Amino acid sequence: MGDLHEGHRSLLRKSKLENDLTVLSIFVNPLQFGPQEDFRKYPRDKKKDEMLAKKEKVDIIFHPSEKEMYPASYLTYVENPALSQSLCGEFRPGHFKGVTTVVSKLLNIVTPDVLYLGQKDLQQAVVIQKMVADLNVPVKVKICPTVREKNGLALSSRNTYLTPQQKQEAAILYQSLQQARKLIQNGEHNPKVIVHTIKKMMQTTHISSIDYIECVQAADLTSLNVLKGNVAIALAVWFGRTRLIDNIFVSVK
Amino acid sequence: MGDLHEGHRSLLRKSKLENDLTVLSIFVNPLQFGPQEDFRKYPRDKKKDEMLAKKEKVDIIFHPSEKEMYPASYLTYVENPALSQSLCGEFRPGHFKGVTTVVSKLLNIVTPDVLYLGQKDLQQAVVIQKMVADLNVPVKVKICPTVREKNGLALSSRNTYLTPQQKQEAAILYQSLQQARKLIQNGEHNPKVIVHTIKKMMQTTHISSIDYIECVQAADLTSLNVLKGNVAIALAVWFGRTRLIDNIFVSVK
Repeated sequence: MGDLHEGHRSLLRKSKLENDLTVLSIFVNPLQFGPQEDFRKYPRDKKKDEMLAKKEKVDIIFHPSEKEMYPASYLTYVENPALSQSLCGEFRPGHFKGVTTVVSKLLNIVTPDVLYLGQKDLQQAVVIQKMVADLNVPVKVKICPTVREKNGLALSSRNTYLTPQQKQEAAILYQSLQQARKLIQNGEHNPKVIVHTIKKMMQTTHISSIDYIECVQAADLTSLNVLKGNVAIALAVWFGRTRLIDNIFVSVK
Repeated sequence: MGDLHEGHRSLLRKSKLENDLTVLSIFVNPLQFGPQEDFRKYPRDKKKDEMLAKKEKVDIIFHPSEKEMYPASYLTYVENPALSQSLCGEFRPGHFKGVTTVVSKLLNIVTPDVLYLGQKDLQQAVVIQKMVADLNVPVKVKICPTVREKNGLALSSRNTYLTPQQKQEAAILYQSLQQARKLIQNGEHNPKVIVHTIKKMMQTTHISSIDYIECVQAADLTSLNVLKGNVAIALAVWFGRTRLIDNIFVSVK
């Protein structure tokens, strides 16, 4: 969706290393924003994006207009209802339907061999992986590590909405996830204890509200009663009017 | 869906003429059958199909299993709700969602340059054309003329369900459509008169019931108050427990 930061740039670098040709799509997709969400104010800076893309030696920028992507007669949707209702899906109805639809279109237009996605948007990555597998889309999906600020805050275009104080306090997201990892590594396998610990840490800040804090199976985002296997701890919280998400993977024996 | 007849064979011949390689998919798609429909008894004859495919010099038959196409974990759907609720969609809820989903998969697996479809399944053809356009699927869709018995009955795998008498009487579908064409060409532009005329002709037979008889815009299947432009006259009726569909295009100045 543009407004490129170091997270996007890490994907571009990986693609440049592994492929002959790298295509960057930039499209703020109206279909994945709810009516009360930040579609209008979502940061757009074409010139900055083009400059950064050039620095990363991107071969092609695909930057379609809204009208090209969704002409007035547009009628077709791709969706994965089962994976789109938990976590962020509960708070952003229609969001993942917008994501799977636009990514289907982008994949059909660009026909890449490899699709690079960031782990920060974990549910998005899992929903797209599942769509690609289910619909036999001929592309390999690679999920790449989240890039973070020095204080641990996951890079996101939405971080520009934060005040300096909020930005500082938002470090708690990653700190609490790291604390959760430690607890699990020390033998805590009860997700309720993990969630409770993270919540307590959140409440030491001026956080406005919590959408969710959950321990799920990394592969299919299903809930866990006992932590086992490849676990993802994922959360979404609000600082003022800014919604932030983060997640980590923990492998539990 | 296999059970190849002259209609399918006409598509294979056209593909052989126009392409280097012809792939025939044979898959009775459970997703497009309703719970009360004929999925179990739908005619399947692999040996006959293979023999006919060989006669038409088909290069590849793609004949996947149900489990390959829809493993237990299957979750993703492609749909076009707006085009899927009129005509057959009203009587077969979920049918076109099953069609667009399986055709998305088949197109991603086979990656053909051209997809050949029969006009007999008009709504299916229009829904697939729209899906291909909306999702930017890199394939050209060609809709080929309906092949008919000598008495005008459109070829269909479901014709094998008909008794000899029903088969004879079912000629009324095409006869009434031809009569409608004549009326329009003689200046009748009121769809109600056309529908009434077809209905009257249907009622001279042992027809069991009528799902619909409609005049619509050929391109997007929307209803028409006055016949103008590229019109499709489409109908679905029952002879005993067999549902038959047919349609014609009429160009109205």
